[in-house]
Amino acid sequence: MAYRIITISRQFGSAGRTIGRMLAAELGIKCYDREIIEEVAQRSGLAKEYIESRGEYSVQGTFGAVLNRGYYGGLTNEDRIWQIQCDIIRELAEEESCVIVGRCSDYLLKDRPDVLRVFVHAPIEWRAKRIVNVYGETEEEPEKRLKEKDKHRAAYYNIYTDMKFGDARNYDLCLNSASLGIDSCVSIIRQLVKQSGETEEQG
Amino acid sequence: MAYRIITISRQFGSAGRTIGRMLAAELGIKCYDREIIEEVAQRSGLAKEYIESRGEYSVQGTFGAVLNRGYYGGLTNEDRIWQIQCDIIRELAEEESCVIVGRCSDYLLKDRPDVLRVFVHAPIEWRAKRIVNVYGETEEEPEKRLKEKDKHRAAYYNIYTDMKFGDARNYDLCLNSASLGIDSCVSIIRQLVKQSGETEEQG
Repeated sequence: MAYRIITISRQFGSAGRTIGRMLAAELGIKCYDREIIEEVAQRSGLAKEYIESRGEYSVQGTFGAVLNRGYYGGLTNEDRIWQIQCDIIRELAEEESCVIVGRCSDYLLKDRPDVLRVFVHAPIEWRAKRIVNVYGETEEEPEKRLKEKDKHRAAYYNIYTDMKFGDARNYDLCLNSASLGIDSCVSIIRQLVKQSGETEEQG
Repeated sequence: MAYRIITISRQFGSAGRTIGRMLAAELGIKCYDREIIEEVAQRSGLAKEYIESRGEYSVQGTFGAVLNRGYYGGLTNEDRIWQIQCDIIRELAEEESCVIVGRCSDYLLKDRPDVLRVFVHAPIEWRAKRIVNVYGETEEEPEKRLKEKDKHRAAYYNIYTDMKFGDARNYDLCLNSASLGIDSCVSIIRQLVKQSGETEEQG
């Protein structure tokens, strides 16, 4: 079956988002990343900055929910964000061919045969250099920033999806952007997508 | 740098060995898999069947060694097999361009920049069908056989390498042979190898 949707999960600083944007441009389709946050903001009434800080890094969600639900009987903001994100990603996949970066989209769309699930990673030393180049210096050491981000992103993923972040078996394709190079990563994915379309036409 | 060596780690039944053989044939290089067992047999004096049963599935090695070493002061057979395998794989990588299937070769050669480390995996249902086709029926259910093999191979890898089997971050490239197809897997790897050679020529 032809791949209509490409989900890109990634380690922070691994160029996963860049790869997603380049790929989408080459395929002539949209790439969704921060756009999802804007849509969550619209639907929830929550501030974008708040959603961003809670979106992929907070592990308050389920923990908070478990602790609070019995008492307040409601959903935490993190769980609301999660539910709205789920709706948006599933709607996107129904509506159009696109690239979706992060937000556990690989998990949410895992039962669709028209989804190519990609994971992009790179060694911490490579990512440390890259985040300084792309995002600039901060007071905190880049490797320390990365370790924090890695820990939170993995915890978020593990809690919401019940799968292990970074396990190859969750994906169709995992790419080490440092060793393969960003252009090569884009080209491998593009070729798989193109080829899947051709196979379908022939079939 | 041009990739001279391609290591293929794989889940049992995922067609990793087939991919390795096809790739080697297309690249005109040798593929080492069972050949390594024969060489271990020659160097150790141990029987091939014994080496095969202990080679990638036994977790007696380090446990056994920890328990026995103090007492007998020697190496277990599993540890001897491991050491000889390490020597053979490192020698191979020095001597010739080749594909090496399994045997923690990704770990043993991880510091060489001319090594492309690939992991091949597939969902258990797909592998179950495949092993019945390739190896025939046995008394034991195919999924049960696979679960045993998976468990032992992962334990062997985790113990000897101190890394987590199946974690994408140990590899340059991870491929789901069931969703991408065996031919596609071969073609992605072949292209990466060819491309790395061309880049080096231009560089």
